[in-house]
Amino acid sequence: MGSQQRKIINDPVYGFITIDHPLLLEIISHPFYQRLRRIHQMAFAHLVYPGAVHTRLHHSLGAYHLMGNALTALQSKGFEITAGEELGAKIAILLHDMGHGPFSHALENVLLKNMNHENISLLIMEKLNEEFGGQLETALAIFKGDYPKRFLHQLISGQLDVDRMDYLTRDSFFTGVSEGVIGYDRIIKMLTVFNNDLMVEEKAIYSIEKFLVSRRLMYWQVYLHKTVLGAEKMLVRIIERTKELIESGMRPESGSHVLDEFLCGNSGILDPVEFCRLDDYDLVNGIKNWMSHKDKVLACLCDGIINRHLFKVKIQADPFSPHMVEDFRKKIGNKLGISKKDSEYLAFTGEMVSTTYNPYDERIQILFKDGSVKDISEVDNALIHQTLSSPVKKFYICYMA
Amino acid sequence: MGSQQRKIINDPVYGFITIDHPLLLEIISHPFYQRLRRIHQMAFAHLVYPGAVHTRLHHSLGAYHLMGNALTALQSKGFEITAGEELGAKIAILLHDMGHGPFSHALENVLLKNMNHENISLLIMEKLNEEFGGQLETALAIFKGDYPKRFLHQLISGQLDVDRMDYLTRDSFFTGVSEGVIGYDRIIKMLTVFNNDLMVEEKAIYSIEKFLVSRRLMYWQVYLHKTVLGAEKMLVRIIERTKELIESGMRPESGSHVLDEFLCGNSGILDPVEFCRLDDYDLVNGIKNWMSHKDKVLACLCDGIINRHLFKVKIQADPFSPHMVEDFRKKIGNKLGISKKDSEYLAFTGEMVSTTYNPYDERIQILFKDGSVKDISEVDNALIHQTLSSPVKKFYICYMA
Amino acid sequence: MGSQQRKIINDPVYGFITIDHPLLLEIISHPFYQRLRRIHQMAFAHLVYPGAVHTRLHHSLGAYHLMGNALTALQSKGFEITAGEELGAKIAILLHDMGHGPFSHALENVLLKNMNHENISLLIMEKLNEEFGGQLETALAIFKGDYPKRFLHQLISGQLDVDRMDYLTRDSFFTGVSEGVIGYDRIIKMLTVFNNDLMVEEKAIYSIEKFLVSRRLMYWQVYLHKTVLGAEKMLVRIIERTKELIESGMRPESGSHVLDEFLCGNSGILDPVEFCRLDDYDLVNGIKNWMSHKDKVLACLCDGIINRHLFKVKIQADPFSPHMVEDFRKKIGNKLGISKKDSEYLAFTGEMVSTTYNPYDERIQILFKDGSVKDISEVDNALIHQTLSSPVKKFYICYMA
Amino acid sequence: MGSQQRKIINDPVYGFITIDHPLLLEIISHPFYQRLRRIHQMAFAHLVYPGAVHTRLHHSLGAYHLMGNALTALQSKGFEITAGEELGAKIAILLHDMGHGPFSHALENVLLKNMNHENISLLIMEKLNEEFGGQLETALAIFKGDYPKRFLHQLISGQLDVDRMDYLTRDSFFTGVSEGVIGYDRIIKMLTVFNNDLMVEEKAIYSIEKFLVSRRLMYWQVYLHKTVLGAEKMLVRIIERTKELIESGMRPESGSHVLDEFLCGNSGILDPVEFCRLDDYDLVNGIKNWMSHKDKVLACLCDGIINRHLFKVKIQADPFSPHMVEDFRKKIGNKLGISKKDSEYLAFTGEMVSTTYNPYDERIQILFKDGSVKDISEVDNALIHQTLSSPVKKFYICYMA
Repeated sequence: MGSQQRKIINDPVYGFITIDHPLLLEIISHPFYQRLRRIHQMAFAHLVYPGAVHTRLHHSLGAYHLMGNALTALQSKGFEITAGEELGAKIAILLHDMGHGPFSHALENVLLKNMNHENISLLIMEKLNEEFGGQLETALAIFKGDYPKRFLHQLISGQLDVDRMDYLTRDSFFTGVSEGVIGYDRIIKMLTVFNNDLMVEEKAIYSIEKFLVSRRLMYWQVYLHKTVLGAEKMLVRIIERTKELIESGMRPESGSHVLDEFLCGNSGILDPVEFCRLDDYDLVNGIKNWMSHKDKVLACLCDGIINRHLFKVKIQADPFSPHMVEDFRKKIGNKLGISKKDSEYLAFTGEMVSTTYNPYDERIQILFKDGSVKDISEVDNALIHQTLSSPVKKFYICYMA
Repeated sequence: MGSQQRKIINDPVYGFITIDHPLLLEIISHPFYQRLRRIHQMAFAHLVYPGAVHTRLHHSLGAYHLMGNALTALQSKGFEITAGEELGAKIAILLHDMGHGPFSHALENVLLKNMNHENISLLIMEKLNEEFGGQLETALAIFKGDYPKRFLHQLISGQLDVDRMDYLTRDSFFTGVSEGVIGYDRIIKMLTVFNNDLMVEEKAIYSIEKFLVSRRLMYWQVYLHKTVLGAEKMLVRIIERTKELIESGMRPESGSHVLDEFLCGNSGILDPVEFCRLDDYDLVNGIKNWMSHKDKVLACLCDGIINRHLFKVKIQADPFSPHMVEDFRKKIGNKLGISKKDSEYLAFTGEMVSTTYNPYDERIQILFKDGSVKDISEVDNALIHQTLSSPVKKFYICYMA
Repeated sequence: MGSQQRKIINDPVYGFITIDHPLLLEIISHPFYQRLRRIHQMAFAHLVYPGAVHTRLHHSLGAYHLMGNALTALQSKGFEITAGEELGAKIAILLHDMGHGPFSHALENVLLKNMNHENISLLIMEKLNEEFGGQLETALAIFKGDYPKRFLHQLISGQLDVDRMDYLTRDSFFTGVSEGVIGYDRIIKMLTVFNNDLMVEEKAIYSIEKFLVSRRLMYWQVYLHKTVLGAEKMLVRIIERTKELIESGMRPESGSHVLDEFLCGNSGILDPVEFCRLDDYDLVNGIKNWMSHKDKVLACLCDGIINRHLFKVKIQADPFSPHMVEDFRKKIGNKLGISKKDSEYLAFTGEMVSTTYNPYDERIQILFKDGSVKDISEVDNALIHQTLSSPVKKFYICYMA
Repeated sequence: MGSQQRKIINDPVYGFITIDHPLLLEIISHPFYQRLRRIHQMAFAHLVYPGAVHTRLHHSLGAYHLMGNALTALQSKGFEITAGEELGAKIAILLHDMGHGPFSHALENVLLKNMNHENISLLIMEKLNEEFGGQLETALAIFKGDYPKRFLHQLISGQLDVDRMDYLTRDSFFTGVSEGVIGYDRIIKMLTVFNNDLMVEEKAIYSIEKFLVSRRLMYWQVYLHKTVLGAEKMLVRIIERTKELIESGMRPESGSHVLDEFLCGNSGILDPVEFCRLDDYDLVNGIKNWMSHKDKVLACLCDGIINRHLFKVKIQADPFSPHMVEDFRKKIGNKLGISKKDSEYLAFTGEMVSTTYNPYDERIQILFKDGSVKDISEVDNALIHQTLSSPVKKFYICYMA
């Protein structure tokens, strides 16, 4: 693909995505990037929304497309963005999610302790920069937030970044939750820069409100859907159980060479090349093999996720009583003939948190025609008000019935 | 069409609309109903949103379609709705907007004093009931709110009625303001009845929030758009000026027989047959003829609306200073060589009001799984809160430049 | 609007249309152009497809949008198009339909003998060129086909022009006949120029086939729909009858000054300023007034079109027998008590013709990778074959029942 | 899920899919059915169309939805379909694709010789019928074509079946090839039954033509896209090579227990339970492991498919010269240092065939208003003509560069 100059990709969301620079084509062809094809964007959401099987690769191509639109919109308003900056910003957004491991967020901090996906993305980007002879310097500076034109970083990671504009749009498209649709097109056309900061023009106020409300809806209705939550907790439990068994001497035998290494690995130093060999397929294959494992807890969890016998989940505003959890543990313990301690894998509680908008933290700023700037929560007659700024905490209980 | 049993109509919004009863087909064929083809749903919104040229007829067919869906959804949940009630509710929604005069809301209370469109719809429905030998009795009872199953009336006129579900959906579709899209399909599937009242199930909470936010956006961004407002004020001024001139002895000569009668009429008694002869075409034709009227004020207004030289409009949170208005009046007065009093037609102020959600008044009720009922503004972590309940008042100034 | 540089218009079909040159904004603001708001794109198709009420103005804005896309696509492939040529081509397409009279094609050659809409568009464009001090010279040359870069004219009027790409897309959108959808986006991306002629790249073959089949479907299913045909024939008959009555001494009294002049006018010289005062509203108002005309034929026709008591229409492959027509004439003659001659207005036959693709005439050319050029009907395994090239003739009978 | 009565599933294509019978819910919950989540509907099409990652499960739910619509349409026209037949037809369509192995068609007849997916679907359905105590008898009879109401079988497998209506619609949706869109909604509304055969009403002619042309486009543009073809041939070669190596004594060690068994298995008797343990994940995991296999041919193929270094593919109307193939074999043989025989895995030719419409075989019949029946290729002025009935054969060459 290296010698091509231009490639047009069909996308059901935006119609066509145009890749218009040879370096972009080379990066996309790289095995590190191609790996994103094998990582679901929404982990197990497809167990509830069967259409939600799109990949990280597809999302990052989409975010790249919106980046192009955003840069064009800003240029047409007279903000200077050089060809090099444009290429840098496009590379940075293409690569922003490289650090996601299998099943994206679901296993973050489980498979690899103390590493979030942004750290890993950075490591991978540095590795690629070496391979490409330093051509990714500007992209790296923008990604890290070191580049002087701060607004370019904010387009990648900020309240109005093209990352979340794409994932909200794409996730609502593929789930079929049409209410999650945001007016990304209008917001992008209303983007502006003031004091080096990305913000939106006054007439975008209602679109921004709508964007925040759509995000709120997607969180509670999709991302934190109780069945999805239950499936993701099963996956976490599977990895935890496997690690425990390995520590007590079991050989992992997931059937995937690279996953076996990760499960046993203790080096603490992450090798980006190794990391980029791991994807959803290694995990699912392991889980399928472990369905017939002699450890009853592991087998039960693996069977559950493959055959969609998922944790039952209840969600409420207050903590669950310890008695309730104990009861569920006893029941499943008796049913499977496992120890009290082991039954903790199959019935437990936890909490989850989501904030609609936190003005101290998020800062979506509106530039008024008179040159003044206000936070979206401070405009006249704001929909997004103080009381929405505190995070909403909910409690869940998961148990195998 | 009378002998047909069934008709399928293409609709870009819902795909197909099926008319499945001979009486419905007869009503649709009636000249009173066909007149709705000649009334724009959104008056002059097309001056800003060129796609917004859809008609009252199209809207009422769409609302009829949603009524069918809503009734089916309720029936599938075990609520009894007889064939007669179904037909009644469908007729009532088909006819709910019959009382709209030319340019819908824009001229309400201007062409006809002291009559709103609901009153007139009722008069027309009663007239049709006579013609159809009493077959519209149930429809009439439902429309007036006299029918024992109160929820049927609420489907026609209430916070969750299919009227507003269709107009928000359809208006956002034809304007291209995609952010106005509501999840009508999901809300309808979540409708339920409790204590004879229409409400929604708990899992519709986020969809309802989204619905209210979309409505809010449509109000401020579309319905009260300053250019649209300016055009509608011009239309009002044209009728007021014409009436004044007629009182001072002018012959109306709009070129439309029926409009001339309305402009001169003083009887105070509305004849539904006469009313149903009047539509947008009479007005536009009159305005075109008056473009060359010797009265400068009338000619100026008529030329403005036809050639899109519209009032300039400013909107702000506080009242405009009287000096400002005076200045505009002087300028236009001098320009046209008209009296100070006449210049008041071409420069003036006013106020407009919209409420996002008023819990005392609107009452969208949520039925929880435990059988409790709460207003949408009272659920945990409500987006729709107290401070949104007071109407937002804004002030405008319109002037011909 | 004159001082603005840039305007974004919401369009339900393409999302947003950007007007990006002051001259374009001035042309759009001109009363001649604003008149297109008052001409239905699809005449009476809305009597069958209630959504099809979009206007000539909306269509010409849409075609302008596609022109921008097409020029960008060609530029990105290295074909030189200067800023002046770009502006010229955009103006030419904006104005290409200015010569349409009321109800577009329905009255072509009826209200004005011996003038088609292209001739009139040219007259109006020349008038505007005067007003704008010669700024439309390039646009005129492109429109007339005099400009050396022939492919620019072909983008406005040719087999792959943006005019038909927009009207097929827009008409299928507003009618809700989703099968009429064409892949305009893909075709535009595949446009190329060879020997100064517009053609498409090899990989567009299936899209072009699809385009021709969609056009075929739209013709037979929508444009030549028998009910639509019936309504348009009624309109023609109304004008013919009115002219006949005027010749025999009647005063037209349509209620529209400008229409009255047209109906009486015999000068034979078309004044573009006069022409641009006439639109759908004049006609509908006249028809409404004539519903109570003492001439029974005229009153019957006018009542029919307003209240949707349309001609019954039958279509078949062979001519209808003269006896059949005579029978219908007798029946309606007796019913209304009119002469045999007059009854010819209310029952008659005719023929209609449509061609799927005529390779001698249409010439959609495919540029192959090896540099050869073939007509779409000559590629291997062509769907569009010889036997589709002869026009299909069908016969209709219209009668008032 | 067993005790539920009704479940609503979000679908981006149709909005909502309603499962309305407990037996359907139980079947969907069965591990055999859940396995379809792990089989891509379009194998490797996502390497070209990144959105095309939807699953067999999603497709069969979609086809089920259309079956419901089709049955309702036929019932509303007076054709008797009992509740039992309705349930049977719905079960049959839900299960029609159960027999697909990993990567659907790509490996048909490769992994399992002499078994097509329909045979296997039948075996699985019979197994399920046992488990469900005979509740699937009607479904089985309909699926096999033994049921007296023949048209029910034709809805599952025939020219107008809901299977292809869903897959064309869904595949064009997820690939973003919007031109593949068919008017499934209209075709379904036009379905009818005559002499126990499924056919369409006369007014569906243009929709059927469009449907066949869309299918033609999808074949040549998507299903037989040269890059997709290349990837699928690589997969076939991988399995063939693996089997060859196993025969010569290698242990498969795919890392998947079930795949290892299939690769070694020679029993010739298919166990449906075993079969339903195998899916895409087993294959991809195996391929990932084999990327570092010591056999150069296998490693090269596996690396190619994972890292998207795919076969180069050329397609033409005539056979490729043997010299050309030899050259490619020599080049890759030298490059990898492998034998001439082994190089045949990495460069080879073949042919592919597609027919637009074969009237002898396909028989889409049109029921005219006068009661006559014609094949779509025999109606007046047919688009779908004789010359399209012979299959189009094309030749391809695949080689590793």
